Amino acid sequence: MKVKAITLIPLPISENQTFITQEYHEVFKSTTHYAVEDVRTARRFISSLKLGLNIETLHFFVLDKKTSEVEVKKYLDEVDAERVGVMSEAGCPGVADPGQLMVKIAHQKNINVKPLIGPSSILLALMASGLNGQNFAFIGYVPIQQEEKAKRIKQLSKHVLETGQTQIFIETPYRNNSLIKDLIKNLDKELILCVAQNLSSESELISCHKISWWEKTMINLDKTPCIFLIGKA
Amino acid sequence: MKVKAITLIPLPISENQTFITQEYHEVFKSTTHYAVEDVRTARRFISSLKLGLNIETLHFFVLDKKTSEVEVKKYLDEVDAERVGVMSEAGCPGVADPGQLMVKIAHQKNINVKPLIGPSSILLALMASGLNGQNFAFIGYVPIQQEEKAKRIKQLSKHVLETGQTQIFIETPYRNNSLIKDLIKNLDKELILCVAQNLSSESELISCHKISWWEKTMINLDKTPCIFLIGKA
Repeated sequence: MKVKAITLIPLPISENQTFITQEYHEVFKSTTHYAVEDVRTARRFISSLKLGLNIETLHFFVLDKKTSEVEVKKYLDEVDAERVGVMSEAGCPGVADPGQLMVKIAHQKNINVKPLIGPSSILLALMASGLNGQNFAFIGYVPIQQEEKAKRIKQLSKHVLETGQTQIFIETPYRNNSLIKDLIKNLDKELILCVAQNLSSESELISCHKISWWEKTMINLDKTPCIFLIGKA
Repeated sequence: MKVKAITLIPLPISENQTFITQEYHEVFKSTTHYAVEDVRTARRFISSLKLGLNIETLHFFVLDKKTSEVEVKKYLDEVDAERVGVMSEAGCPGVADPGQLMVKIAHQKNINVKPLIGPSSILLALMASGLNGQNFAFIGYVPIQQEEKAKRIKQLSKHVLETGQTQIFIETPYRNNSLIKDLIKNLDKELILCVAQNLSSESELISCHKISWWEKTMINLDKTPCIFLIGKA
């Protein structure tokens, strides 16, 4: 059997699973093979859907940041399924996530790629920020090392002022508080900093203010999943 | 009554409405006031949900690209509702769309902003492209005027080669074929061009290939909604 299609299946970014639709149910009922970032999360998610599926009969291939191109090619050549579901740990596979490698190879092999609609913390944060959504960039992480980090933030500040392009980035949650301090210190005072915490959960909090407001405000973001956005007022 | 929250409600990007969930139903059942890009589309969408609502009793405020900041402020100050739903013509309000202005002002007035999960053609295209999703930018439209357009495409080509940042853009559908020709002519031959057509519909087609492939291939994209992406192989 040859793989004809891969389905990109977004996973919840919080306990909130209200986005799960009939289309999801149909995909899970007809898919037996999955390429997943984390097998435990994937099994738990499928179980939570209560579709009466026997999880033990499903097949999982680990597709994480250690998986090589050769391994993905071999898997797609040899897997005994017409359709493979791709799931990351949370959010949309392929966006800031290892699913991308399988999608890239699927295109090389003329395998159909079908993305499902689901949660992306980057997109939810952008929508909810009120910042420029006609021109925006997601840039991943800023550098860890202090001097480089300050330099990068100053460069982003200048770039936003010059181009108006909203800059979106993330940080390892235990470094959030330290990042906020560096942002306040190094960004132009007229810029807006937006922090979107715990998106799509009961404790979701979206704070968008000028740097001059943040200077006077203490917010503890320690160990909280956050998206950071900077933009022009 | 003072507005306490605005709910950002993504609308379908195709005839496919499978993303509509219980959460959507609850929002529509409890909201009477809406700020919308197009009143007809909004009414038609609400009717299609078949929730037994009397559309005639709902209130619509037009929030399109002509709506001024003063008008939005006045509306939020005077509207007789605790919650306002925001809807654009299609996709996510606030992303490449006039909803952004109301979100921005809501933050200034300390009104809670609640984004719902829904379809974004930009995000679906990125997921399905297999291009770099750790670093990407959406830049809106490229210039119309021929010389400027060629210059901008060459600049994007250089930027992708140097930084690896995926560039995402759109075009007025009747200019798609002309854009494709200019992309083939001006992009570095080693780059990948991905075109995502009719996303989330029956005729969805996602084509990702090197420029050297596109040079040999004729695809008619005339009047088809498309997202264009360029990235490193």
